[in-house]
This record gives sequence, structure tokens and C-alpha cells, in this order.
Amino acid sequence: MTLISAKEVAKHNTRQDCWVIIHGKVYDVTKFLPEHPGGVKVILDQAGKDATAAFDPIHPQDIIKMYLPPEAFLGEIDPATIVKHTKKETEEEKRRQQLIKNKPALSEMLNLYDFEAVASQVLTPEAWAYYSSGADDEITLRENHNAFQRIWFRPRVMIDVTHINMSTKILGYNSSFPLYITATALGKLGHPEGEVVLTRAAYSHEIIQMVPTLSSCSMDDISNSRGKGQILFFQLYVNRNKDITKNVVQSAEAKGCKALFITVDAPQLGRREKDMRMKFVNAPPEVQDEKDLNRDQGAARAISSFIDTSLNWNDLKWFRSITSMPIVLKGIQTLEDAILAVEYGCDGIVLSNHGGRQLDLSRSGIEILPEVVEGLKKRGLLNKVEIYVDGGIRRGTDILKAIALGAKAVGIGRPLLYAMSSYGQAGVERALQLLKDEVAIGMRLLGANTLADIKPEMVDIKDLTTHIYTPKDYLNSSVYNRLALKRSKL
Amino acid sequence: MTLISAKEVAKHNTRQDCWVIIHGKVYDVTKFLPEHPGGVKVILDQAGKDATAAFDPIHPQDIIKMYLPPEAFLGEIDPATIVKHTKKETEEEKRRQQLIKNKPALSEMLNLYDFEAVASQVLTPEAWAYYSSGADDEITLRENHNAFQRIWFRPRVMIDVTHINMSTKILGYNSSFPLYITATALGKLGHPEGEVVLTRAAYSHEIIQMVPTLSSCSMDDISNSRGKGQILFFQLYVNRNKDITKNVVQSAEAKGCKALFITVDAPQLGRREKDMRMKFVNAPPEVQDEKDLNRDQGAARAISSFIDTSLNWNDLKWFRSITSMPIVLKGIQTLEDAILAVEYGCDGIVLSNHGGRQLDLSRSGIEILPEVVEGLKKRGLLNKVEIYVDGGIRRGTDILKAIALGAKAVGIGRPLLYAMSSYGQAGVERALQLLKDEVAIGMRLLGANTLADIKPEMVDIKDLTTHIYTPKDYLNSSVYNRLALKRSKL
Amino acid sequence: MTLISAKEVAKHNTRQDCWVIIHGKVYDVTKFLPEHPGGVKVILDQAGKDATAAFDPIHPQDIIKMYLPPEAFLGEIDPATIVKHTKKETEEEKRRQQLIKNKPALSEMLNLYDFEAVASQVLTPEAWAYYSSGADDEITLRENHNAFQRIWFRPRVMIDVTHINMSTKILGYNSSFPLYITATALGKLGHPEGEVVLTRAAYSHEIIQMVPTLSSCSMDDISNSRGKGQILFFQLYVNRNKDITKNVVQSAEAKGCKALFITVDAPQLGRREKDMRMKFVNAPPEVQDEKDLNRDQGAARAISSFIDTSLNWNDLKWFRSITSMPIVLKGIQTLEDAILAVEYGCDGIVLSNHGGRQLDLSRSGIEILPEVVEGLKKRGLLNKVEIYVDGGIRRGTDILKAIALGAKAVGIGRPLLYAMSSYGQAGVERALQLLKDEVAIGMRLLGANTLADIKPEMVDIKDLTTHIYTPKDYLNSSVYNRLALKRSKL
Amino acid sequence: MTLISAKEVAKHNTRQDCWVIIHGKVYDVTKFLPEHPGGVKVILDQAGKDATAAFDPIHPQDIIKMYLPPEAFLGEIDPATIVKHTKKETEEEKRRQQLIKNKPALSEMLNLYDFEAVASQVLTPEAWAYYSSGADDEITLRENHNAFQRIWFRPRVMIDVTHINMSTKILGYNSSFPLYITATALGKLGHPEGEVVLTRAAYSHEIIQMVPTLSSCSMDDISNSRGKGQILFFQLYVNRNKDITKNVVQSAEAKGCKALFITVDAPQLGRREKDMRMKFVNAPPEVQDEKDLNRDQGAARAISSFIDTSLNWNDLKWFRSITSMPIVLKGIQTLEDAILAVEYGCDGIVLSNHGGRQLDLSRSGIEILPEVVEGLKKRGLLNKVEIYVDGGIRRGTDILKAIALGAKAVGIGRPLLYAMSSYGQAGVERALQLLKDEVAIGMRLLGANTLADIKPEMVDIKDLTTHIYTPKDYLNSSVYNRLALKRSKL
Repeated sequence: MTLISAKEVAKHNTRQDCWVIIHGKVYDVTKFLPEHPGGVKVILDQAGKDATAAFDPIHPQDIIKMYLPPEAFLGEIDPATIVKHTKKETEEEKRRQQLIKNKPALSEMLNLYDFEAVASQVLTPEAWAYYSSGADDEITLRENHNAFQRIWFRPRVMIDVTHINMSTKILGYNSSFPLYITATALGKLGHPEGEVVLTRAAYSHEIIQMVPTLSSCSMDDISNSRGKGQILFFQLYVNRNKDITKNVVQSAEAKGCKALFITVDAPQLGRREKDMRMKFVNAPPEVQDEKDLNRDQGAARAISSFIDTSLNWNDLKWFRSITSMPIVLKGIQTLEDAILAVEYGCDGIVLSNHGGRQLDLSRSGIEILPEVVEGLKKRGLLNKVEIYVDGGIRRGTDILKAIALGAKAVGIGRPLLYAMSSYGQAGVERALQLLKDEVAIGMRLLGANTLADIKPEMVDIKDLTTHIYTPKDYLNSSVYNRLALKRSKL
Repeated sequence: MTLISAKEVAKHNTRQDCWVIIHGKVYDVTKFLPEHPGGVKVILDQAGKDATAAFDPIHPQDIIKMYLPPEAFLGEIDPATIVKHTKKETEEEKRRQQLIKNKPALSEMLNLYDFEAVASQVLTPEAWAYYSSGADDEITLRENHNAFQRIWFRPRVMIDVTHINMSTKILGYNSSFPLYITATALGKLGHPEGEVVLTRAAYSHEIIQMVPTLSSCSMDDISNSRGKGQILFFQLYVNRNKDITKNVVQSAEAKGCKALFITVDAPQLGRREKDMRMKFVNAPPEVQDEKDLNRDQGAARAISSFIDTSLNWNDLKWFRSITSMPIVLKGIQTLEDAILAVEYGCDGIVLSNHGGRQLDLSRSGIEILPEVVEGLKKRGLLNKVEIYVDGGIRRGTDILKAIALGAKAVGIGRPLLYAMSSYGQAGVERALQLLKDEVAIGMRLLGANTLADIKPEMVDIKDLTTHIYTPKDYLNSSVYNRLALKRSKL
Repeated sequence: MTLISAKEVAKHNTRQDCWVIIHGKVYDVTKFLPEHPGGVKVILDQAGKDATAAFDPIHPQDIIKMYLPPEAFLGEIDPATIVKHTKKETEEEKRRQQLIKNKPALSEMLNLYDFEAVASQVLTPEAWAYYSSGADDEITLRENHNAFQRIWFRPRVMIDVTHINMSTKILGYNSSFPLYITATALGKLGHPEGEVVLTRAAYSHEIIQMVPTLSSCSMDDISNSRGKGQILFFQLYVNRNKDITKNVVQSAEAKGCKALFITVDAPQLGRREKDMRMKFVNAPPEVQDEKDLNRDQGAARAISSFIDTSLNWNDLKWFRSITSMPIVLKGIQTLEDAILAVEYGCDGIVLSNHGGRQLDLSRSGIEILPEVVEGLKKRGLLNKVEIYVDGGIRRGTDILKAIALGAKAVGIGRPLLYAMSSYGQAGVERALQLLKDEVAIGMRLLGANTLADIKPEMVDIKDLTTHIYTPKDYLNSSVYNRLALKRSKL
Repeated sequence: MTLISAKEVAKHNTRQDCWVIIHGKVYDVTKFLPEHPGGVKVILDQAGKDATAAFDPIHPQDIIKMYLPPEAFLGEIDPATIVKHTKKETEEEKRRQQLIKNKPALSEMLNLYDFEAVASQVLTPEAWAYYSSGADDEITLRENHNAFQRIWFRPRVMIDVTHINMSTKILGYNSSFPLYITATALGKLGHPEGEVVLTRAAYSHEIIQMVPTLSSCSMDDISNSRGKGQILFFQLYVNRNKDITKNVVQSAEAKGCKALFITVDAPQLGRREKDMRMKFVNAPPEVQDEKDLNRDQGAARAISSFIDTSLNWNDLKWFRSITSMPIVLKGIQTLEDAILAVEYGCDGIVLSNHGGRQLDLSRSGIEILPEVVEGLKKRGLLNKVEIYVDGGIRRGTDILKAIALGAKAVGIGRPLLYAMSSYGQAGVERALQLLKDEVAIGMRLLGANTLADIKPEMVDIKDLTTHIYTPKDYLNSSVYNRLALKRSKL
């Protein structure tokens, strides 16, 4: 095969004729331009150039095959012809590099917030925006943790708590404590190795990781990074192309995933304005193309346009037909849907609002938990499903509250991304250890030796569903022009 | 007709002998001075000069005929004699012009608050004060939006939401989504073309505009700006002169308005202190005439002194006699009055507190909605009227909440003025598009394909009527002198 | 009588031998020193000097006769011998004088808070501290107004409100609107003429003034400042010396006071720390005499040590025996005591916590109002007393809320002191006019033509007694050392 | 005995061979290093040196005998050989010394917060961190005081309150007012003399002190500092070595302690992050030894590792067998455990969450009080125990609220440490006097002459158990990246 010279590629740099280099391969993406979920502009910025650095962090490795026809591949680049353009470092980037150099020792991380504080400094603005953003006014994003603080403890004393055991089983698989790593997309934005870092940390802590559909690493990479006997679950965004969906599910099962978590709260991804604002950061306003307005909507929406909006209860039968993994619905938000999930034979449900990234002002998982547990109990359905909660878990006591109210385990996502982005695998391991320590201390102070000892009467939830004190609406309040008094002038 | 020279006009510049030029015409306003709703001083500032620039933004075109007798018109000005006085630009004005130059690209506007933020910078201080102000401590002004945040969603999942239809009918007329542009006064303060900008944007989005009595544009201008088949409603401030009222209503109907919205919450306009403070901005304190205190009360009160304080339920019969338009009462705030409105045969009611500009500490429209809907339902009256809500709508989810609770549509005012003032027609169109997008996403995430699918049980309103956490009372808290601790001095 | 020379006086300047000059008279106060309610130190500062300037603002004219025996008077000072010591103006005082010079025009005062803002600048620090302070953490001080904001309106529409009448009768005497000027002490701290300024303003607005026991002006001065037919009430701090009390009450009645308001919430004055801190402002710490600690407690406690701690229900019979004025108890805070007041034959009660200056965390008068009105009604006692409320009135709508809930009128104190201190009589008149305007607008917007039209159902008090969101505890929160995150260093 | 030279000691300065000098004695602590509850590193910092200054403030005098075997003692140091190393003063320390010099006069301390403000400046950072810190997010720490502010007063009037008596009996012993000094550890961190300062102040105010297990002073020192007839109680952390526990209890009884308060809420000490962060303050990150991570956890955990995690109800019989002191359980947090305490024959219970230092989000003692009092009353058990409350007491009114709700007395800890650290014994005495004054004023204003007159109906506790407005979560909110608006650039 003849190699293509970089000089040749460079000629094809217009909307009408657009080539790019990715991982040493040259592609003609002219026809693909209008279909790119991330918008035309981001590709045109790379037209005639090596796009690898821009491509990598937000695309799973195998996505090219999924989207480009074979004929788009034109050949290999001639490596000798490549001229490295050292991107001029901005002031902001220099500052970030300094911050990375001066970050605190890992041992100084005392809680999950410390990791988030460091991550907010060491991540690129784009990665931070993608990871940290929530829908609309981010009220649900913050409510998720706040809701835990409307739950107060009623600790018991004078109980021998010398021997604490916090292990449990999730869908029959052992977990060293009642927590799993939930699926989050685009791990390579935060760490060059991506999600496999979480895989390794999960192994060393004997907990389960849920592999995301939108992983930066391939299923293969993650599967190969597993330790001996390590359990993985698989999170699925249903593709509107049923063949792709089937392929994805069966491949996950084949590679050893033990449960299928279908995301049901995202027929469309929510509007995450922090993420959406990112594209304007460096662009001078005048060059923006108004016509592209509706396409350029941040990383989140760019990678999600394939999601099937028609997913419904009847599809569950089909899922049963293509896999023998237990099926869990992720994103249940009402008792009504919890009942349906049981009636349709699901093995578990995750009470979740997608980390506050979907419908703003939807309730937190922890708030929904008593509604679901009591409702299912009343109908004799409680023993038919395992119930998990995610969203807002930051402290060991948050986990204890979920357990007290009937959750089997909780999922945790962002905080581990922050730990990974700041300190790699050691960071994730320390974050998990901090949570474990907090859970152990909390159990001692509650007077509980095992998870089964943590009873509903140990928490006061009288005000859990009270929504009087909403998280602050920053946009609304910051645009409000305060009344001012008349005073003497000096 | 002989032309009058500017030099001649300039001689008549006292309280006892006061001429002004408006649109090339010379008027003797000496007798009118004490009757001017806006106070004597603002006219005297223009005595003997061309007052057009000051007159235009806050007066409808045809108001001169309404207030001045024919003999006040003295003749045309001799254009050759006019000396243009270029008003010296203040530092503040220079800064504003710079801000206008540097305003963000329209594509960067991601939500309605962005427009408000830009408008607060690019509007003249007077216009901003008039548009943004509310009554007294502006607690109701802010409560209007805050109330929506005491309503939380209970979204349903696993529903095919591929085909979203958000169209509806308002009083039988098509609307592309459940929102109309409500009446707001003095559009030319924000944009040189005034309300016709909104008319054009309404057409392109297939929604209905309510034309205000206090429009800067004449009914003719607005009517002529309509697109094909475009529907207008008319908002009426009832004039204490019944002939004027009749004339205004019949002229609106003649020019094609399809419904009459009578404002019932404003027998007197509220005190809007931001607006009232404006008159002091440039005046040195010593020249103020204490006697004029009660007249000089900002733009709002200046333009509203004609409003009929005696308007009452018995007048509805008379309205029926002068128009065949459906009649809607705008400003209903209790179930009791909603029942009366139905009993008096009204076709619709707007639950509204006039954008927080009238009685401070009155409840928000959205809070009143369940009281009214349930009360009317109980009495079998719910199908007799359409119910609308305005006040505080800023997000698509706000609209969905109103629909879930039984509103036919919502009205929106200020946010579109801000969009218009910042970016003209394109701004208004983008603002509406953003709202539409948010409504569409929200419907998908709620599991609703049509407005009829949005059910009351999809919202949790347990705390909607709870008034424990009142919007901050800025005057009260800022004048409070905090307690201080004794510390070491260094 | 021989005149005494200033030189001679100057020799008597020690604790053992202490003379002072007051209004041209020389007194030997040596024996009085340990009894001075305001502490020894403040007198010693004046030992051997002319103390008039220090004496005047905080002592009623006739107090010398009350406390000093006749022999303490040594003679007149020889005016020729007085050397004026022009006190060196501090930087702070210079700044205050500048602020006074630059204060806004009276016409710029748009609400009561504006007056308070100006007063906080133009008053001496001592006067501001005395007027503005409340007990302990000042939580009740702020709660008094905040409580009004847990009351929301249910305004009625379509009512002819052309003719508003807001006049009423208080204990049978006419008042132009339902408000009286309540008693506040030490008026000369704020204005050289003192309380007579309020007397004149009350006359011009046709409202009633309650004359305070601790007035800076004498009863004579106030009585003589009355306009024709002007009504005064009298507020009484009961002196533990019954003769003094009898004398004071009968003299008030003789001078034309029409009702006796006995303060019942102050057997001891509360701790007002702002006021207490004042004495340290200029003193270097080292010279403070630890022994005097318990005496030097600010203006408030200095002037109140005579108050009778034994006052009880049985004393009412005695009061009936010494006066024929109607008797009103000021400071009732529970239904239980309201019932007792009726049973003991009182003519009225003021629901009040003494402007938040007594027991901190006691409830506001407006909160107590429904408890009292409903409780008395249930027992058939409601028509036996008039009920007034004071504390936290700042807006016309506050007054309307009190009326809706059954108050006959409200009392207002501090805001008028602030208006008086800033702009004298014209200031007080404008403040009252602003309140009247707000009441009139509020009545129109509520749909009420007379006070009798303001019904309980026009207010929503569901959350009035809810104490979840307490006014901020500034000391507690400012001394709290916030948790901090670990971040990268730069 | 031969003296050892400092030069000789200096040779033994490694992990493998580690000597230290304490109070003139040389110890070989090599074997003890891995067992040191405070971690290896802090000892190695002193290896081969005189460790007295580092040892003293955080170790009770007699602890060496408890932990080191006799053979570890090598001999006395030769005083002639010691070279004083004057530790170079840091900038921070210089600033602190200046602040100490400039601290306000004691007479300027008007409330307990003033002492805390001064203490926060004059304490070493380590001491401040140890004293002021709470568990996790310190929400319970702050809730403890906040809860009092959800209790409002219903004061009675017209009661003769001339003679206030606020004395009471605690477990039969006289106390001048219903407050005792509760146990707090490490007094010498704040004052060179340690807890005996509190002992002396307790005597002069005729109140009872509870001596802590973790006192910096020995039981002997404290016992010897007592005044005539002064009563002490003893607080016990149960040691997992029963012999030590027995020894400690019997020695306390022998030295005259009159009651045994067993701490039951601390089978493990909570995580106090302010305290934990202290060890990083001066250490450069790179030298930190990751392996020691789990040991180096601040002063609190360093001194507490001996606590018995197996303590349970059955142990009470054993306690009865070793002492005749009445037994009180400190740290009861539910009605259930209060009932058990009565059933197991305890003489008293302290409703306490350990000053917010144990399980965060556990309820405050004052909130639990009505639950316990009403629950015990219903079961006829209320007269079987005395009930005390501690946590968050800052004002006299807090004490009155606890009394009104059925507490016999309240405990106070931190505020007196702050007073002691800032002004020594005189500071503690003034702090107590301020509280007494506040209690006396409060009783007068409530209409109560004795503690028995303070009735439950004098407080409104409707919202005491409402947890809607949680103390601010500073970590969570400070790491949140607020949404920002798009504005014009200038």
C-alpha cells in the first residue's frame, strides 16, 4: 500500500473536500461532515491535519468503523512527512500545568471533596465541563447530595461493635462494601488510560465496576484489565439500530459481563450548559456559523445522538431473547415504574436521575427510595428486585442512609473520575478507602455490626420529601438586580 | 401655513409660557403642564426645544391627540432653523456603547437568563429600570419564578417518545407550543422599532401575541406587521373615560384582534422603586421641587393615570355590548374571583400578579393554579374557561409544570423584551427556540408525547403553597447593622 | 447668690470630691457617684467640668430633681469664667459631618429603609447603637419584620376602589390611618429638639403619639407642642417608688394624655450588645476599671434601673384608683396573658416584644395576633379590648396584614426616629406620607375601600407560626471556622 | 545513678534506635514506635532530642507508666549537657504573639462568642483545630446550637420577679445555676496549667466540674486544686483493658469524685478533618510516608485508640460492682436507649452527640430531649433518672429552653476552654458570670422566679424536629462550580 504524504492530506482542507489523519490512517470525511453528531466545525478545525489528539479523548476506539464506510479509508500516512505542530501553550494551559505540578500529596486527600477540588484545577476546562455539568440550572445535580442532609441519624449506643462486617452481595456477586462503580462516559478526558484505571482499582478493593457504553476504552481493554475473578456489569445506551444494540450486548456478555444495566432515563440527553459553553471558549464570536447552532452542543450531546427514543416496556422481551444476563433498569424515578419493572420481570432497578444530567427538578434517588420500598412492600413485591440508588453519594454516612432505607447498594461515578483524573489508580483506591473508613466508623457509631443491623428506625426521614429550601438558582439570582438604598454620598 | 422658527420657539421656555417641538410640530403646552401625568419637570426640561427624542420612547404615537386640544398645535417648525444640539455623551453612556459593541454572539445565548444579562448592560438605565422593576421589595417579582422550584417532577420512563407534538389551541387558535407573548408596555425603550419586532417573531414561531394598550407602536403599525393568518389578542387597560375605552376596544377588534384581555389587577399601578429612582439619577438634589414630589414617580405611573379605578363585575355586561371578542380577565388571584369570572361568563382567566409589579407579597400565578383548577373542578366549572398563567416563566420545565397542573398555556413578557432589546427580532426568535427546545426535551424526559400526556401526577406540589423561605428582603437586610465580635487588633 | 468660678469647680475633679456644671448650675455629685445608673466612669470623665453636653441627650430635663438632694446644688457658675474647650474633632466625626452635608434630598426617600440608611450615617455612633440595637443575637429584632413576609395576600379584583377611606378610631379617638407613634426613649440623641418633633408631625398627619416615660423632652414641652385637639397617649415604665409612679401618671393625665399604656414586658431591660459596646469605643483598654463592669452597660440599662420588678396583676386595681384614663398593657405575648388582661378589665393590649429589645427568640407581635384574636373570640372576649401590634412595621402592606388579622392599629417607633434624625419634622411627615400612600395603594390592590373591607381571608397565614428559617445568627456563624478543601498551590 | 549526656542521647536518633528525653528522663522508645497511637513520625521528629515540649500538651502526666515498660527508662539526663535549641519563630507564630499582646480587655467580652473569637486568634493552630473541630462536614457541630433557635419563647408578664433563684441540685449536689462544666480533653493545649484552671473557676461560681479521662492534668492535680466542699464528677472513656478501667474509676472515687459519667457515644472517635489536616501544615508533601497514613490522624484519634469497642449494656453490672458512685450514661441519643438506661438502673443520662465530634448528621441533644421526656413520662419512668443535655449551649436562653423541656441541667465545654485559653481563670469566671446574668435576665423576662416556674408551655417547639434548613455544607457548596451567565465583555 502506498503511503500518503502529509503534504497531500493538507490540500484537502475545506468543507467540500475534507481529509483527516487519525492514528496514522487517512480518511475522507467530506460526506460524513453533515452527519457528525458533534457538528461540522470541530472537524473542519482539523481538516487536512492529524486529528488524533482531538479525536481520542471523546471517541471510543472502534467508533470509526461504526460510522464511516470502508471507502472513506484512503490509506496510511507516510510518517516521515508528518510535521509536529507544537500547539502554542496558552497562559491558561501553563497555569494548569503549574497547578498539576503543585498538587497536594495524595495523603492530604481526606474526603471525596478534596479530589473534586484538585480535579477542578488539573482537568482541562473541557473535561471538567463535561464531567461536572448537570442539566439546566443544575438544581437536581445539587439536590442529589443535599437530600441526604434531610436525613438524620438516630444512633444506638452500648452495643459491642468490635467486629464490623460491611460486605454484601449484588445480584449474587460479592462486594467488599455496598457500593459499585457506576458507568460514566469518556474516561480518557480525565486520564490517558481511561476506564481501565477504575477497573484495576475496583479489583484491589473487591468491588464491582459497571462498564459504560460510552467508555473511552474498548470493552476488550477493560475486560483484559480485570483481575482474577473480578466481576463487571455492563451499562447500555440502547442504539436505535437494533443490530448494533444486539451486537453490543452480546459482545459484553461474551467478554464476561454479569449483568445488563439498561439506561432508561435518557431517550434524549439533557441540556448541560457548562458543557455547551465550552465550544465558545476559544472561538472569536464573529466566526461562528449561526446555521450550525443546533448541532454544536457540547461533548455530551455530540456522543449521544444514536440513542433510541422509542425504547419502551415491550422491548424488554426482546432483550430477554438476546441475553441471559440479569436485567436492571437504570433511571427509575417513580413507584409506578418500579412496579412495572417488577411486573416485566427485571432483576433490579437503579433509582437515579442520571446524576442530575437529565431532567432538572426531578427528585433524587434517595428521596424516591422510601416511596419505592414501601410501595413494593405493600404489594408484596419487595423481594422480587434488588434496589440500588445513585446520585450525590459523597460520604460514608450517605451510603448508610441508603442501606437503612432498603437499598442493596449504591452507585458512585463522578467522585471516582475526579480521583482518577487527579491521582490515577492510587487516587481511586484512596477515595474508595476513605469511603470504606467512613462506612466502618459510621456503622460503629450507629451501633451496627453488619449491614443487616442498619434499620429504618435508625434514620429520621420526616423531612426527606420536603422541597422548601431548593438549591440556589444561580442564574436567576445573579441576573436579579437588587434593590438599593439611598445613602449619603461621600 | 407659515413655518415657525426654532428661535421663536426658544423664547417660550418657562412654566408660564411653554412651547415644545414634537415630530416637527410646535405645541403650546402651558395649560397642559399641571395635568401631565409624568410631572411638570420633565416637560420644562424641554421647554422651547425639540422634545421628540424624549417624547418618543415613552409615548404611543397617537397620544397627543388624546390629551392636547386642537388649539395647542401652533404650526410646523421651520426645519432650516433647527440647530442640532449633540448631547454630550456621559462616561456611563460611553461605557454602554462599548458594551453594546462587545456583546456576545447570539449563538452564545443558551437560556433566557443570558438575554437578561446582556439586556441589563445594553439597555439605557431608564429602560432597564422600567422593564425590570417590581413592586415594593420585589418579593413577589422573584417569588414568581421561585415558586416553580417548589414543584418537582415525577418522570416516567420506557415510553416511546420519538414523536413529540407540543402544539395546542388557545381560545380556538393554533399555537405551535403552549405559550403566548403577553402584553408589556413601552417597547421602544428597548428597541427603536418597538413591539412590531415581537409581532414578526411571533409569526415566525407560529405563536400568538397580545397587543398592549400601552404599546409604543400604534395598533395600526402592529396590525400591519402581521404575517399571513397571524393571530393577535388585545390587552386593555380600562380608561375611566368610557368613550375612549369603547373606541380603543372596537378599533382593536376592527384591526383583527381576536380576544380581549382585560387587566383587572391594576386599578392603580404599584410602587416600583427602581423605576421611581431613575428621575434622580442625573438631577442635582438641590434643584428638585418638593411640590412635584407626588407626580414624579417614574415611567410606570406617569403613563397609567388614566386607568379606571371603578372597574367592577357589572362592567362586563357593557363590554359584552361593545365587542364580540371573547373576554379574558387578566390578573385573577383567588379561587373566589375565578368562580365569579366564570359566573359572569368570561371565556378565560389569566392567573397573574402582573409580573410582581402590583401588590408585593401576593402569591404567584403558578401557586394559585391548583387552587383554581381544583376549586372549579369541584363545582363542575372547569370546562367553562381556559386558564392561563403568567409570571416567572424562564425554563421549558416551568411551562410543563403549568400544563401538568391544568393551564392551557402560559404568557411570557419580560424575557422577550430582553431578547428584543439585545438582539432584535433574531434574538426574540432564538429565545423562543430555546424555550421550545427545552419544552421538547422536557416532554421526552417526562415520557409525554403530547401536552395531554402531561398529567398532574407527574409533578409533586406538596410544598408549592409553603411560604417559609421567602425571597430575600434586600432593603431590610442591607440596612441591618450586623452584630460584630470583639477580636484582637493587629 | 455668689457665682462660682470655673476655676474653683475645676479643683473638684476626683472620685473623692467631684463637682460638675449642668446648665449653668454647679452640683456636688460625690455622694451620688456610686448610685449613678450609668456608672461612675462617665461622670468622672466630666469631673470639674461643664457636663451639659454629655448630660443633655440622655437625661430628661427634670431628672436632677428626682435623684439629687437639694443640698447637692452649690450655686450658679460665673459665666465669665467658662473657657470653651472645643473638643477636637475625630476623623470619624469629620466624616460624619461630611455625610450629613451630602445626604440625599428628602424627596429621594422612597421608603422607610431609606431613612434608616441615612440615619445610620448621620447619627452619632452612640445614638445609632442605642436606637438600632436589640437583645442578645437580635434574632427577634429581625424576626419582627420577617414574620410579615410569611403572610401572603389573596387580593380580590373587579371592585370599585375609587374612594379609599383608611381612617379609624383608637380608644375612641380619630386617627387618619390605623397607626400611632409608639413610645421610644431619648429622642434628643437623634434630634436636638427631641420628641416634640414627632408631636408636630403627628398633628399634621392627624395621628396619635404615645409619650414615653423616658422622653428627652419633658411632658410639659410635649404637651405645649400639641396642635389644636391633638390627642396624646402616655407610656409608663412603672417606678418601684409608688409615689413617683402616681405623680407621673397623674401629671400625664393632667396635661391631657388620654390613655395609659403600661409597659409590662420590661421588669428588667434586655442585654443590647451594640449599645453596651459603645462605652469601649474610645477608651483605651488598659484604663478600664474591672470593678465597674456590672454598671457600665450602655445607655439602655443606665436609664432604666428604677423600673419596678414587682409589677403584677394585682397592681391594676391601684392604677384604676389613681387615674381615669383607659389602661392598655403594652407587651402582651401570649393568649393566656391576653385573657388575663381582659379579665382584669384592661381596655386594650399591645402585642409586642418591645421591638426585639427584651427576650431574644420571643415571637413577633404579628405572629401572636391570630392566637390572641381566635382565642379571645372563642371565649366571647374579643369585643372587650382593642388589640394593637407593634414591631417590624416597615411597609404599608405590613399594616394591612395586621388589620386583616384583627388589629385595631399598629404602633411604629424606630423608623420615625430615623426620619426625625435625618430630616427633622419634614422627614417624619414624609415617612408617614409614604406609609399612607402604601396603605392606600395596598387597599386598592386588595379590593378594599375601608379598613372593615380587609378580611382575614385576604391573607394566607398558613406558615406564619413556622420557625424553620430563623434570622441569621451572625455571631455564631461568624465565629465558625469553615471547613476548607485541599487544592493545588500556585 | 549515672547521668546520661545529651550527646549520647543524640546518637540514638533513628527508627531502629530511638531515644528521647522527657522531663529530664531518658527513654528508649524503639520498641514502642510502631504502637504509638499518634504515629511513628511525630516521635521520630524528636528522636535523640528533648521531647518534653512536644509531649506535654497532649499527654496526661502519668501516661508514660501506662505505656512504657520499666526497662525503657534508661536514666536521668545530665542537665549540664543540654543545649537549648531556640526554635526559630515562624511568621505565623510572630503574628499570633502580636495578637495575644493586642487582645481586648476582659471587660470587653460580652458573650461567649467573644471568647471564641479571641481564642481562635490566640491559640496555636493545633490547639484551635483540636478544640474547635467536629466530625465530617461539621453539620451536627453547628446544628447543636441552631436547634435552639427553632425553639421560641412564650413569655408571661405581670409577675413579680424581684427575687430570682436559679440554684438547683444535680444528683443531690448543690449548683448555683443549672449548668456543669463537662469533660473536655487536653486542657494544656489551651493553657499551661490545664484543667485546674476550670476547677478553680467552678469553685468560685459554685458549680460542678466533670473531670475528663483525657485530662492534661492528673486526677491528683485537679483534686488538690479543689476548694472547700467542692464537688467533682468523673468522665470515663472505658479502656479495653478492664484492669486499667477499674483502676481509673476507683482512683477517681478515692480522690473524691461523686459521680461516674460513662461516655457511650464513642466506641470509635469520629473523623475530625480540621484536626487531621494539622499534621500537614508544616511538612513538605514529599517527605510524607504513605504507609503511616492510617495512623497519623490528628490529636483526637492519637489519644483515643485504647477505647473499648465492646462496651455494652451487660457491662453496667460490672461497673456497679467496682464503684458506689451514681452512674450516668453520657451520649444517649434515642428514647429507646433512654429506656434501656433506666431499666439498667442508671442514675442519669446525658443527651449528647459528643459536641458534634462523632456521627455527623446525628440529632442535637436538645432535639432529643422532648422525645425522651415524653417517652419516659408515658412509661412512668421520668422520675427514675436525671436528664442532662449538652451541645451548642451559648446563651442563657439556651439553658432556659433545656430547663423548660425537662432537663435537670446542661453541660458546657468548648466555650469555657476558649475563655480559659484567652484569659485564664478570670476569663472562665467572666464567661460563667455572663451566662448567669443571661439566665437571670431571661427568667425575669419569662416571668419565672425559680427553675420550677419555667414550664413547657413557655416554649414553642413545633418546629424543633424539622430538618429542612440544614447547616450549610461548606465543602459541598465550595467545590460546586456555579453556572455563569454570558455578558458583554469590556
